[in-house]
Amino acid sequence: MNEDLTLIGMEKGRQYETIISTKNEDGSKNAAPIGVIYAGNDKIIIRIFKGSHTLDNIIREKEFIVNITHDPELYTISTLGNLPQDYFEDDGSIKCMKAFFKCEVIRLTEAVKQSDPIKKKDEAIVIKAKVTDMTVKEDVHALNRGFGYVIETLANYTRFDIVGDDQKEEYIKKFKEANRVVLKVGTKEDIKSMQIIKKELMKKGYEP
Amino acid sequence: MNEDLTLIGMEKGRQYETIISTKNEDGSKNAAPIGVIYAGNDKIIIRIFKGSHTLDNIIREKEFIVNITHDPELYTISTLGNLPQDYFEDDGSIKCMKAFFKCEVIRLTEAVKQSDPIKKKDEAIVIKAKVTDMTVKEDVHALNRGFGYVIETLANYTRFDIVGDDQKEEYIKKFKEANRVVLKVGTKEDIKSMQIIKKELMKKGYEP
Repeated sequence: MNEDLTLIGMEKGRQYETIISTKNEDGSKNAAPIGVIYAGNDKIIIRIFKGSHTLDNIIREKEFIVNITHDPELYTISTLGNLPQDYFEDDGSIKCMKAFFKCEVIRLTEAVKQSDPIKKKDEAIVIKAKVTDMTVKEDVHALNRGFGYVIETLANYTRFDIVGDDQKEEYIKKFKEANRVVLKVGTKEDIKSMQIIKKELMKKGYEP
Repeated sequence: MNEDLTLIGMEKGRQYETIISTKNEDGSKNAAPIGVIYAGNDKIIIRIFKGSHTLDNIIREKEFIVNITHDPELYTISTLGNLPQDYFEDDGSIKCMKAFFKCEVIRLTEAVKQSDPIKKKDEAIVIKAKVTDMTVKEDVHALNRGFGYVIETLANYTRFDIVGDDQKEEYIKKFKEANRVVLKVGTKEDIKSMQIIKKELMKKGYEP
């Protein structure tokens, strides 16, 4: 089966915010926010820090579910602790998702992501997986963080000429951080937008 | 006519990213990114810095169009300069919008927005307007920046315990800035999420 993730707005090579649910050893369910990179066709790539329940579960079960949601409380509760069991459907997906898809592990690799500011050797595992079953109940786009950074950068840009030197330096610092994230996760349009802004800042004599 | 902005995902009292198009004195068209606060029913509030073409046009014409788009290049081009005339429809909206709505000015007020970090007296005008005609071609949600800040804050939170004191301080600073923006623009769920994270940081002995 060829499950096409462009249906939920994913672009090849870009990273999207999702909540991944897995089965614990005792049969209960677990959920954690994980960035999912769309690798084209029916393939995805995720990177998970060692020592997490999610990674243990994926290594043991060789499968997981990617839930597509824009609900900030689900992200928050599942980051700070465990999502209660009554948040899950019997099939392991989270309740009330507009879209979710099941994945089977193809390959596990040790990796250090170079673009990450918190680099440590042997800290994470990169997992390549195949989408085996996609459910789309309502029109929904997987969330990409790039656009928010472009908007923030533009808001700062409009103030650039009316603030003092310290604040200008702060804005250049923020530009660099935003650009780092956009290059990692953003769409082609986000990246092009940051390049346009970068040129304008360079015209003003800065090196963003 | 009661034009209901909840149709495009707007929540009363919250601010959404849009591009506002207006008519210049010579009949040509102008566009600029402006945050739109939904004031409930068919009313919106916008705040525009003095000296902008958009403000001059709105004061003269007493009307404008709010374009709902997630295209970062449209935001970037219309921030850095003028959107070329062939980007506009004859009715003044921007081409290929999934949704847009026309507004008539009800009231103009001088104002300083207290939550803004760049405060200056008499710098901006607050405009209350009535939605007179809404076009929704495709299912689309107006963009709210709150969720992106919640996700960024959660990503920082997961690294909080593995970074040094300088980086912890940087994360607390980022939390404060994110919380400021979320309180201003975010949805109820975004605000609740930030409160949950704040409590966790306080348990760790910080004052975010």
